[in-house]
Amino acid sequence: MKTIDVCLSPELMHLYDVHDRTVVVVDILRATSCMVTAFAHGVESITPFAQLEKCLTMKTKGYVTSGERDGKKVEGFDKGNSPFEYMGDQVRGLKIAFTTTNGTQAIEKSKGAKEVIIGSFLNLNTVVKYLLLGENNVLIVCAGWKGRVNLEDTLFAGAIVEKLKDYLGPDCDAPLAARHLYNQAKADMTQFLSESSHVKRLNRLNIHKDFEFCLTTDLYQVLPKLKNGVLVA
Amino acid sequence: MKTIDVCLSPELMHLYDVHDRTVVVVDILRATSCMVTAFAHGVESITPFAQLEKCLTMKTKGYVTSGERDGKKVEGFDKGNSPFEYMGDQVRGLKIAFTTTNGTQAIEKSKGAKEVIIGSFLNLNTVVKYLLLGENNVLIVCAGWKGRVNLEDTLFAGAIVEKLKDYLGPDCDAPLAARHLYNQAKADMTQFLSESSHVKRLNRLNIHKDFEFCLTTDLYQVLPKLKNGVLVA
Repeated sequence: MKTIDVCLSPELMHLYDVHDRTVVVVDILRATSCMVTAFAHGVESITPFAQLEKCLTMKTKGYVTSGERDGKKVEGFDKGNSPFEYMGDQVRGLKIAFTTTNGTQAIEKSKGAKEVIIGSFLNLNTVVKYLLLGENNVLIVCAGWKGRVNLEDTLFAGAIVEKLKDYLGPDCDAPLAARHLYNQAKADMTQFLSESSHVKRLNRLNIHKDFEFCLTTDLYQVLPKLKNGVLVA
Repeated sequence: MKTIDVCLSPELMHLYDVHDRTVVVVDILRATSCMVTAFAHGVESITPFAQLEKCLTMKTKGYVTSGERDGKKVEGFDKGNSPFEYMGDQVRGLKIAFTTTNGTQAIEKSKGAKEVIIGSFLNLNTVVKYLLLGENNVLIVCAGWKGRVNLEDTLFAGAIVEKLKDYLGPDCDAPLAARHLYNQAKADMTQFLSESSHVKRLNRLNIHKDFEFCLTTDLYQVLPKLKNGVLVA
């Protein structure tokens, strides 16, 4: 039986050997939800950057730059981190350089894995089917918040573990914990997450509609995948 | 309102500022359960060591040495890591030098906190009352398994968060996750933990009775506390 594990924070990545694993990076609020939305609307590529400065230099090379820190768009960047900025005809064919507080850091730490794909509730079943048909063991990497564990990424990990429970065995306790939390939350995830720290943070920034959108399940069928450091559909 | 946070793995300790916090170290299976049992039976002190070799040298200084790695007693040490080794009249007045795979590592990383106390289900309500009456913010440090998150320590953290929910506000999502898991598990913790990785490990080592004992709530009223690097009651 293939196995599945969950890394609840990028700060724990050194504990996992990923060279033979498919890694699913998740940052529900909002980096990976944005990426999935962008590919569903036809962007050509997204190049993730851990560092703000490096990302900004891509402007001169024909890239649209997207920069977010602490939930806010960064000055000098073309776009921020709301999925609603990555919709419509105007994003088709764009090459985007993307940096966020947590999500692109998690992608950076996942390099070295056999393959890296991008997950969100928006493409949940596409991710599930891909992992089911694949031959590799799986590691879900939760982006968290500045190294700390968060609820929304853990719930997504739990959803994957739950849906694949007859096919992938848990490697350790983190997948069990995530699955228990997902099963407790799934009837009303909005309510379950209402007291979570990042949802409160987003509400303070007046972006509650982003939160609701990012919890929508299976709106898109795209599967962003890292190839030579660049995400493509 | 005072706050409470949960560090789900010692590998995340660098994210927390503990200089003004009371830290509760927990390693349910089995280091902190042993420590609480030992003090309930009158040991004088327990000196925790992260390193095996340093711990063993204490033998020449009149200490009883306790050493465990990967769930097994280490050759050359007087005792292992079963709570049943720390009961009865023969432990009264002993000075113990203690090293374990996870628990004493977590204590080592907690040094620098305003105060460090030892928690387990065996002294749960004693810990709760102490935190309630204290003036400091609280951090529960879960020992985990070699840096990975485990279920049993997370459940203990959740029990503390739940019992103090009207008095201490959560700092982040980890206390919320732990509380949700505890509330799901509390009706039958033995059943809830039956598929956890460390319980399976202990069952393979034929020490299921240790597991059952370590889940017993409020058997003892002792509160081990770190003073100058040494635990005393």
